[in-house]
Amino acid sequence: MVGCLNTQALSVTSAMSVPEKYVETIEALRAIFPAAEVNTDPDVLKKHSSTFGVSRARNPPGVGHTVVVYPRSTEDVVKIVKISREHLMPITAYGGATSLEGHATFVSSLTSESGGICLDVSKMDKILEIHVEDGDLICQPGVQWVTVNETLKQKGIPLFFPLDPGIGATIGGMISTGCSGTNAVKYGTARGEWFINATVVLPSGEIIKTRRRSRKCSAGFDTLSLFVGAEGTLGIVTEVTIRLTPLLPTRVAVAGFPDVAHASRASTEALNCGVNLQCIELLDKRSMAGLNAFNRNMRQWPEQDSIFFKIQGATQVFIDESARILREVVERNGGSGFEFAATEKEADDLWLARKSAVMAGFALAPGAQAMITDVCVPLSALPQLMTNIGKDLDEAGLLAGTLAHAGDGNMHAMILYRNENEEKIARGVADKLAQYALQLDGTCTGEHGVGVGKKKYLVDELGANTVELMKQIKKTIDPLNLFNPGKLYPD
Amino acid sequence: MVGCLNTQALSVTSAMSVPEKYVETIEALRAIFPAAEVNTDPDVLKKHSSTFGVSRARNPPGVGHTVVVYPRSTEDVVKIVKISREHLMPITAYGGATSLEGHATFVSSLTSESGGICLDVSKMDKILEIHVEDGDLICQPGVQWVTVNETLKQKGIPLFFPLDPGIGATIGGMISTGCSGTNAVKYGTARGEWFINATVVLPSGEIIKTRRRSRKCSAGFDTLSLFVGAEGTLGIVTEVTIRLTPLLPTRVAVAGFPDVAHASRASTEALNCGVNLQCIELLDKRSMAGLNAFNRNMRQWPEQDSIFFKIQGATQVFIDESARILREVVERNGGSGFEFAATEKEADDLWLARKSAVMAGFALAPGAQAMITDVCVPLSALPQLMTNIGKDLDEAGLLAGTLAHAGDGNMHAMILYRNENEEKIARGVADKLAQYALQLDGTCTGEHGVGVGKKKYLVDELGANTVELMKQIKKTIDPLNLFNPGKLYPD
Repeated sequence: MVGCLNTQALSVTSAMSVPEKYVETIEALRAIFPAAEVNTDPDVLKKHSSTFGVSRARNPPGVGHTVVVYPRSTEDVVKIVKISREHLMPITAYGGATSLEGHATFVSSLTSESGGICLDVSKMDKILEIHVEDGDLICQPGVQWVTVNETLKQKGIPLFFPLDPGIGATIGGMISTGCSGTNAVKYGTARGEWFINATVVLPSGEIIKTRRRSRKCSAGFDTLSLFVGAEGTLGIVTEVTIRLTPLLPTRVAVAGFPDVAHASRASTEALNCGVNLQCIELLDKRSMAGLNAFNRNMRQWPEQDSIFFKIQGATQVFIDESARILREVVERNGGSGFEFAATEKEADDLWLARKSAVMAGFALAPGAQAMITDVCVPLSALPQLMTNIGKDLDEAGLLAGTLAHAGDGNMHAMILYRNENEEKIARGVADKLAQYALQLDGTCTGEHGVGVGKKKYLVDELGANTVELMKQIKKTIDPLNLFNPGKLYPD
Repeated sequence: MVGCLNTQALSVTSAMSVPEKYVETIEALRAIFPAAEVNTDPDVLKKHSSTFGVSRARNPPGVGHTVVVYPRSTEDVVKIVKISREHLMPITAYGGATSLEGHATFVSSLTSESGGICLDVSKMDKILEIHVEDGDLICQPGVQWVTVNETLKQKGIPLFFPLDPGIGATIGGMISTGCSGTNAVKYGTARGEWFINATVVLPSGEIIKTRRRSRKCSAGFDTLSLFVGAEGTLGIVTEVTIRLTPLLPTRVAVAGFPDVAHASRASTEALNCGVNLQCIELLDKRSMAGLNAFNRNMRQWPEQDSIFFKIQGATQVFIDESARILREVVERNGGSGFEFAATEKEADDLWLARKSAVMAGFALAPGAQAMITDVCVPLSALPQLMTNIGKDLDEAGLLAGTLAHAGDGNMHAMILYRNENEEKIARGVADKLAQYALQLDGTCTGEHGVGVGKKKYLVDELGANTVELMKQIKKTIDPLNLFNPGKLYPD
């Protein structure tokens, strides 16, 4: 009788601070779902109270008035939403928890006193239909993009889903965060057309399906787009049709540049030269130093601002011609040491360096923690942004490797800190970075969302009227403020 | 004193049927705007009461209580919206009027008795800023996409805006319709990421700017997407930042197929073969017959279901390799007569045939009028759809050329009719076509919107709850129902 146990635990901790009705809510959930799917184990609650990144919730969740529920279907989600409405107990949907700003941390907005339902989609992890000829696939929201692509590969289907945020990210979370990744320079982001339709449970408990399965549709505004980047505040996605695209052979090239300005110009010229580029990833010289420190016994890189290019080519003719053109672009923009991995194996090895960049960032200061920032500016403003923040980091005496999805103007600095004082300084630098991005007509969040960490920038970035419109829509769709309250919309 | 003249004209026609307050509204507009920009000339009203296509309004607009206003700036639009609110006189924004379903026809929803303000954006036609390095451009909503691309060409900037609906379509109308065109197979639609941000005047008279100018942004849900496909019912777009993309050399290939099923399979395989295809346009055998009838003294085509491919290639190596691969794909799928236009001139000539397809459609029955349909289905369903509608057309004794953006599953049949009886029969066939599309998990409107013509399918297509959500949002943003009332949302 897990329920009884928890009610007892509850009375032991602080009977006064617990909303009695939430205890009832948890009982109501237990009455409907199998015991294993309504979890109030303090360790499980704790796990669900944190997500990757700087906005990690530090308060322990309120045992007894917080609960993790694991639905398996749209109907299960409806049941949870109905109970939530009846008891006015808020719901936070929880996917891969790879976002940076704490949007899925159900206790970061709700104090540990107020509690909430964490709706964990990890058991909604089925791929339901694959339509090879149509180039689409229907799945539940808890499926990870990595799993989608592995499944297609195993089945010998030469298609893939190109949005590639953090490993572990789920399709539902990717919609909710408005994610992207290294492939965005070729394929765009979650705001594009990769999500054909979604089944969504609204805060009213009603189910909608945003549209049908054709690639194009101009039947009014796309209600799916309301849920892209809404961080679970407007609806809970329970089924999605995603669009797939041909999986083409890729090769990798790398080159060093005298400075970020040259690298950035090379990136823009490469974007426009007609070569199929899947990724244009800029690692600044500090990141390259991190790679050297990380892989001490392996290859040592010139500690220069460098670009890793991923080239697509269906045949060797395409690949060779692409490499030839790209080399010219690099050399025309002051690049040196152009290296082209001619075989798949060499390409994988070279790309591994790029993939190691985040781990390598830590190697700059062993034992340090990292604050990972995420801003995006118009392409031409990237050098200015990186110069500004480089100066600030030097003045603050902090180390940070910088990694940019250069073809999109999206930059992450991994600011390292060792203690609370340095963390405070790092936070100041991260804040200035967001301000610089806004001054350069960019955004405080390129691909990781707002959550709780970036609410404070939203009015500056979008304007009071735009934020007011967002809030009006929130109020219309969720008048009881039950879906992920306290996130996204600034107070 | 144009105002006085019109007030007089008004009293001559039907004093009883004119809402007195609208006469006052028009006077209020005249008090603020120059005489030439507040137009009540019956011919001008009549011009603005029709758009291209089947839903053309047949009622003459109500002289005296309808007015066309030509704003030049966001501030002008705010002034018009404020007057509209004060007088409760509805506003319909009017762009290039190339949509098919009558969304911009301000008298098709409002009876000629009730009247309205037609906000014609043709004088908001400035390109304000071009950011070559960033690959974007800021313009007013009345600029035509053709003008954008001509301007870039004239300035020697090797970028273009790839959405290509009807000639004459304006950027504002393209957003409002959720348009696409022949390039969608490569570049997607207005629902994608081509509109970076927009300045929008809301029905409240407030101005929002949906976001800033970086390519990526995950700062909440994208409020711009509310206005894409909303047909001017939620806001009036007054300034837009559009994303540009490299303009690459193209070549054209054409091939005939035994039937639509073979052509469709070739199209899908071509999509996935790693060749950069900008367009995959399928003309059925009837359309090819139309081309022959249209160009009697020029080239005669085999009257087969045929595909026109537009290939992109930055260099000759890319183009030759693409043509080689494409030929293989065509031949593997039963295609014949593969013809590749090796020079730019030959490619232009070949593409002209595709561009003539609509005009050529009329050549099948000289003197007839055409009902142009627009449905979209998952790729694999296109042959079934075309078989179904072909049978219905034969049974009805009607001629129609069919044109499909095959890489997207988007099909237009140009149903010809000569008299009212045939028109009625044609309408029945068009209605069945929409039903087939829905049965095949597609949409009644691939790229031309809902307007008034397709409102009746919306609940079937999207479901009652989704339509209800759209209406709730409409009510939240436009509680007085002043922006393009009677369009898009079924009653």
